[in-house]
Amino acid sequence: MISGLNTLSAAEIARRIGRGDIAAEAVVRDCLARIDERESTVHAWSFLDPDLALRQARACDTAAAVGRGPLHGVPVGIKDVLDTADMPTEMGSPIYKGHRPKADASCVALMRAAGAVILGKTVTAEFAGVAPGPTANPHNPAHTPGGSSSGSAAAVADFMVPIAFGTQTGGSVLRPASFCGVIGYKPTYNAFNRAGLKFAAESLDTIGLLARTIDDIALMSAVLVGRKPEPVAVPNARLRIGLCRTPLWRAAQPETVEAVEDAAARLVQAGALVHACDLPAPFAGLGDVRDIVNDYERAHAMSWEWQHHRDLLSERLRTIVQHGFGVPHDEYVAAVRLMESCRAMLKGVFESFDVLLAPCVAGEAPKGLTHTGDTRFQAFWTMLHVPTLCLPTHKGPNGLPVGIQIVAPMHRDTTLFGAARWMIERLGSWET
Amino acid sequence: MISGLNTLSAAEIARRIGRGDIAAEAVVRDCLARIDERESTVHAWSFLDPDLALRQARACDTAAAVGRGPLHGVPVGIKDVLDTADMPTEMGSPIYKGHRPKADASCVALMRAAGAVILGKTVTAEFAGVAPGPTANPHNPAHTPGGSSSGSAAAVADFMVPIAFGTQTGGSVLRPASFCGVIGYKPTYNAFNRAGLKFAAESLDTIGLLARTIDDIALMSAVLVGRKPEPVAVPNARLRIGLCRTPLWRAAQPETVEAVEDAAARLVQAGALVHACDLPAPFAGLGDVRDIVNDYERAHAMSWEWQHHRDLLSERLRTIVQHGFGVPHDEYVAAVRLMESCRAMLKGVFESFDVLLAPCVAGEAPKGLTHTGDTRFQAFWTMLHVPTLCLPTHKGPNGLPVGIQIVAPMHRDTTLFGAARWMIERLGSWET
Repeated sequence: MISGLNTLSAAEIARRIGRGDIAAEAVVRDCLARIDERESTVHAWSFLDPDLALRQARACDTAAAVGRGPLHGVPVGIKDVLDTADMPTEMGSPIYKGHRPKADASCVALMRAAGAVILGKTVTAEFAGVAPGPTANPHNPAHTPGGSSSGSAAAVADFMVPIAFGTQTGGSVLRPASFCGVIGYKPTYNAFNRAGLKFAAESLDTIGLLARTIDDIALMSAVLVGRKPEPVAVPNARLRIGLCRTPLWRAAQPETVEAVEDAAARLVQAGALVHACDLPAPFAGLGDVRDIVNDYERAHAMSWEWQHHRDLLSERLRTIVQHGFGVPHDEYVAAVRLMESCRAMLKGVFESFDVLLAPCVAGEAPKGLTHTGDTRFQAFWTMLHVPTLCLPTHKGPNGLPVGIQIVAPMHRDTTLFGAARWMIERLGSWET
Repeated sequence: MISGLNTLSAAEIARRIGRGDIAAEAVVRDCLARIDERESTVHAWSFLDPDLALRQARACDTAAAVGRGPLHGVPVGIKDVLDTADMPTEMGSPIYKGHRPKADASCVALMRAAGAVILGKTVTAEFAGVAPGPTANPHNPAHTPGGSSSGSAAAVADFMVPIAFGTQTGGSVLRPASFCGVIGYKPTYNAFNRAGLKFAAESLDTIGLLARTIDDIALMSAVLVGRKPEPVAVPNARLRIGLCRTPLWRAAQPETVEAVEDAAARLVQAGALVHACDLPAPFAGLGDVRDIVNDYERAHAMSWEWQHHRDLLSERLRTIVQHGFGVPHDEYVAAVRLMESCRAMLKGVFESFDVLLAPCVAGEAPKGLTHTGDTRFQAFWTMLHVPTLCLPTHKGPNGLPVGIQIVAPMHRDTTLFGAARWMIERLGSWET
């Protein structure tokens, strides 16, 4: 139901349940009703057991009021590369058909401890890679939702669930966020514990979040890192924004150029200090080394699958793993060192800026469900280990959302949230 | 049998099997005979199925000569925090009693692909932490073998297996190596893929190796990173060694002081350029932040176990997890940032040195099996993400081994091997 409790934010759901105004069961019922209505079009879920979800919700409703967590009764979607002890974890691959892990992933266990209802598992591209599942873009099902966190982005955008987990190795959180018109958050590398995550490329893999409000991102994030949840505060001083077009600017489509330039212009009008930010020359080399690191680490992480179930991998993944095993070790190390030195240089860049404003995607979601889009605009920042957000502020020629990307220094995730709130209030949503 | 094929190095076993001089089955039989003879004293193995090991060996012996890997027929021990699809993986905890993972860990799968025989699982302290298993020091069973890679170090030292995996978050590879008198190797952080490793503290966890020769360390390492195995070459130029006593020097016992000073003096005599290396002031703070990072990450990684099986954790681990969940997030981030900035500063330190020579342990293995010893001397370098080796060169007052530690810059693991070979040739073994 588009007008039901499923349209509320996680923070609002938690607030209303806390006040006794609504029951967790009613929230879950509205989410399930929305899924029932839309799933045959959107295909966001790889596993959903309505009874199991409702049992969790009823347990929330009968739990003592004392000792409730900050997400009490809030439904959450879990990307299907994260282990769940009570639901299958299939990684978007027939190799793991029906696989039931022994334990919950850290992030899942922390959600449960905070009172959340684990609604179900969302569709992932095969092993969080490039071969997509069946998910369609909820705003136009002929278009990709992006990937690899396809189901999480589509489910949140389509009001099936307020918040969901994604993971990003290249652009797997921010690209689907932009394509589906929701907020995507990739925290500082290693901010959310990765125990129970199936690795793609471990020096890049980052667990991230999808939500419809920045407050929900901050709330969920607080639970995961162990902070007291607090309202997101806008910055006290004028925001110093670096307009960072990046070496990828020439690959940006008109709608992305327009989104970034328009955002910059309006933020200047609103009082921000916006200056162009040119990155040191070595950053131009990051694009060339991304596949070296990704494929090398991917191949190693999938050694068992490669030896025992090669025939069950998609052709695209086989190509990547084969390439990865062929990467000379010296070349891999050189690529890792370039990333490390760019990370160190980025510290200097941030001496002049609180946050950077950058393109988030090549453009709006492409037509077709066989590819999830261009990963480069997001992967650029994933390699740098910095926290980034997709804010879905603009619209493309086909009426689909186009996000902008904002970036903060490592460990300055709360700075990023504050800047995001200030920008969202000034730039509005792509739909309005 | 102390004179059997079980006493050979991995490289020698591979060579002889490759020439057709010996059979893999004969090697495994001698390893099993040695285990049969000594296991009731040493307790190095948490799982060993002789038939399964022999079946693997016979499969090696009947395999075609073409396409054999560089470890064909070589037995390997696997620390029981690394997943094995055909053997239980119990983490030293009753929570995982009989647990059988779906897949092999990356490093196990890579060993199999190289032809190795997975001999069995070695005893780990509970979740690679501080509460030890039953393993005793093979040189004096009243003394600890160190931990948490207790079984791997003891099994290699006792000629039960030529090579074995350990993992190091604090000092879990190098300390048992020193206590048991074998070589311990902690590579550059992230060098060996961690897919299928149960995390302790993921920003520190490093898969490492235990062996009796530096050639074996290099051989196994080549397999794991995808390099062509090559003999370890000694450096061409005079080795520039930084004598780095570290801020822990005052905690070193006389035998460690003696080992480091004696090694430095003899290496000078042998032609090395040895100069004192004083670390910048912030390094003195590393000791204080280690538990903050370790406990915070440990608690998050064990969220599921904490919620569902708290009563099955040892009291020591419960204390650590409880402390970890209580660490304020800002304090954790500050600790991570100190480690990051020391890593950056260490690059400058290494401009003057090829390798550093440092204390490896407080002293020889303490008496008693309830504690695995002081982790600080090894953890100092684990926090810095640099590759380190324990070389078992000296002896303590009770006739037990005392290792020295050598350290190279990140990604310079082959430099470290070369320096190690040169030093071993000059310093000899603790036993001689």
